[in-house]
Amino acid sequence: MTSTLSRPAVNDQHRTTLAPLTVPERLLLGPGPSNADPVVIAAMNRQPIGHLDPAYLAMMDEVQELLRYTWQTSNTLTYPIAGTGSAAMEATLANVVEPGDRVLIGVKGYFGNRLVDMATRYGADVRTMHRPWGEVFSLDDIRAALAEHRPAVLALVHAETSTGARQPFEGVGDLCREFDCLLIADTVTSLGGVPIFLDDWKVDLAYSCSQKGLSCPPGISPFTMGPRAVEKLQRRQSKVANWYLDADLLRKYWGSDRVYHHTAPVNLTYALREALRLLAEEGLEARWQRHQQTAETFWEGLADLGLKCHVEKEHRLPTLTTVCVPEGVDAKAVNRLLLSEHNIEIGGGLGELAGKVWRVGLMGANSHPDRVETLLTALDRVIHQVRAA
Amino acid sequence: MTSTLSRPAVNDQHRTTLAPLTVPERLLLGPGPSNADPVVIAAMNRQPIGHLDPAYLAMMDEVQELLRYTWQTSNTLTYPIAGTGSAAMEATLANVVEPGDRVLIGVKGYFGNRLVDMATRYGADVRTMHRPWGEVFSLDDIRAALAEHRPAVLALVHAETSTGARQPFEGVGDLCREFDCLLIADTVTSLGGVPIFLDDWKVDLAYSCSQKGLSCPPGISPFTMGPRAVEKLQRRQSKVANWYLDADLLRKYWGSDRVYHHTAPVNLTYALREALRLLAEEGLEARWQRHQQTAETFWEGLADLGLKCHVEKEHRLPTLTTVCVPEGVDAKAVNRLLLSEHNIEIGGGLGELAGKVWRVGLMGANSHPDRVETLLTALDRVIHQVRAA
Repeated sequence: MTSTLSRPAVNDQHRTTLAPLTVPERLLLGPGPSNADPVVIAAMNRQPIGHLDPAYLAMMDEVQELLRYTWQTSNTLTYPIAGTGSAAMEATLANVVEPGDRVLIGVKGYFGNRLVDMATRYGADVRTMHRPWGEVFSLDDIRAALAEHRPAVLALVHAETSTGARQPFEGVGDLCREFDCLLIADTVTSLGGVPIFLDDWKVDLAYSCSQKGLSCPPGISPFTMGPRAVEKLQRRQSKVANWYLDADLLRKYWGSDRVYHHTAPVNLTYALREALRLLAEEGLEARWQRHQQTAETFWEGLADLGLKCHVEKEHRLPTLTTVCVPEGVDAKAVNRLLLSEHNIEIGGGLGELAGKVWRVGLMGANSHPDRVETLLTALDRVIHQVRAA
Repeated sequence: MTSTLSRPAVNDQHRTTLAPLTVPERLLLGPGPSNADPVVIAAMNRQPIGHLDPAYLAMMDEVQELLRYTWQTSNTLTYPIAGTGSAAMEATLANVVEPGDRVLIGVKGYFGNRLVDMATRYGADVRTMHRPWGEVFSLDDIRAALAEHRPAVLALVHAETSTGARQPFEGVGDLCREFDCLLIADTVTSLGGVPIFLDDWKVDLAYSCSQKGLSCPPGISPFTMGPRAVEKLQRRQSKVANWYLDADLLRKYWGSDRVYHHTAPVNLTYALREALRLLAEEGLEARWQRHQQTAETFWEGLADLGLKCHVEKEHRLPTLTTVCVPEGVDAKAVNRLLLSEHNIEIGGGLGELAGKVWRVGLMGANSHPDRVETLLTALDRVIHQVRAA
């Protein structure tokens, strides 16, 4: 063997000896990940195949087509990003923002602020409009901000994972056409659980994740880009300032050219394909209705326990509910006990709502009355325990 | 339900009906993905847990520590990126390159060119040094180029996946200290299969992938950054021009603060943790020796069949061999028949070597004399078939 003798000795300082993996079984009722459908988990339990294997290419087409159905779009450029939801979020901005472009962002929660941070990194002239966390923008708010800032891009969060509020999108796309700007929609906590009509709403770019409404493990994240956004991409003076997320390179892999870009997360594609197959089997109408009914059952149960929701019912997401922490209750202690004694994960408040709310997700396979009952029973018990402590 | 009546009808145009997933069983002997260890695949076959679950946080620590062992480094900032190898590649450049920084890149294959493309997008003043595809740089070449260009960063590919050549790193780090520049190493096709002594070699940043020497599915990618690189990160005048890969944000999640950044690819972390556990159990010396011996068996077998290797033995990677396509043989026809008749995937040539070589990977669990025999038998048969056609 070449140069064995001149090699240093292997250092065993970091050579930990581990037992085979064990993982606790949790009921994941936080903001995500949610539990995946068991069929989806089982789909990953096989060997990878090559990312240019004909069988894999066929699977890519299936995933693209069913993502179009799920988003209700006919966008050619509809494919999953090989990363988690924040990568797909960044992909929307990276592809259409050039240095100096004015980007208007609706901030009404944590993920609005994340969009601000990201857009700044791409050299955007970032402008913001604000609503209190838990509320939404009206069409009048949006019209006024568009008139004031005249942005090239408007980014709005459809389902604010930090607040549980659903931003209405009806009419927003028309306003964006009137003001000649692109519209980006964050559908991370809505895709597969909340009605979305991307083409009807005239949304130009959207992103989501796998581990919420789609009931798939995290790590692969839907992205879509319509013709007006593609046109801006083609008019760019500068290369996309992000190689991994460059839609011009990615469409050569996802399109008929099949030009190698990156090694796809093959097993996660298996999972996503199965998650989307199950979704198409159930149908969007039935799925949305299931999520709405489960949520309403939960909200009624909360009221019976004397617990309040942070968001007005009209704008409440069925996928994610922010529950107000009652006066005098240690929110984190409740989270800890739910996890340690009941194996149930719910989320704490994020940003401005830290300590003030819990975040409960009832998404995908977890959108089910059984889960609601399990959670309400445990939550009631644990809150009493914490009050008594 | 809110506003059901005003909604558009769901469009079923893209609602494909699919059968449950079936995936062909392939022996993956191309440049990657390789077959994963069955124990690693099985590890993914469970429900996700939360990315802030105490059990998950403990697993993160295990993964970090074993990555340090695998790379032979004590870098605190050693963690996997939630994406494939190219994302980890981009993470090295994104974090230490500021606009105007001079970056010298050694180009002796496809992935050197990829580094050039990426560095350009981060505003680097990119300089290149070149060697023919399949050859490597000498210390004299490197010294001369450093003296000429005086870069802030030198990026070199340790294991060129497109050529099968191994770049010696002994002494390169000392040169980089002498010229006061950072050293980035691409170890995508070497980690877990080829001797690497990151700290001994004085490498400042490195990246790899999961689906080759580590025998894990693709989608999660090791990244490491030493103290000199961290210092440059902290001296930055501008934010890292990539939110998803920002090491300053990521270290708050991977470090003791545990500040939420992105939703981790939980099931892939299960897989990587098991892959690293198996690697530590086997031990680096034994693993490197296994890869070397398997490769030598393969090279001898190739010679017996009258087939030649593209790279001189001294600089040949044990993980990836470029086999010269004999005169008059249709390379792609061989790939197709191997796949369709033998369920064996090997790679074609990339870039300058397209049509001239096949790329054979014997990595991780596939570094085994059985696989060598299977491949040699099938390859010999298929080449005769193609010649006869």
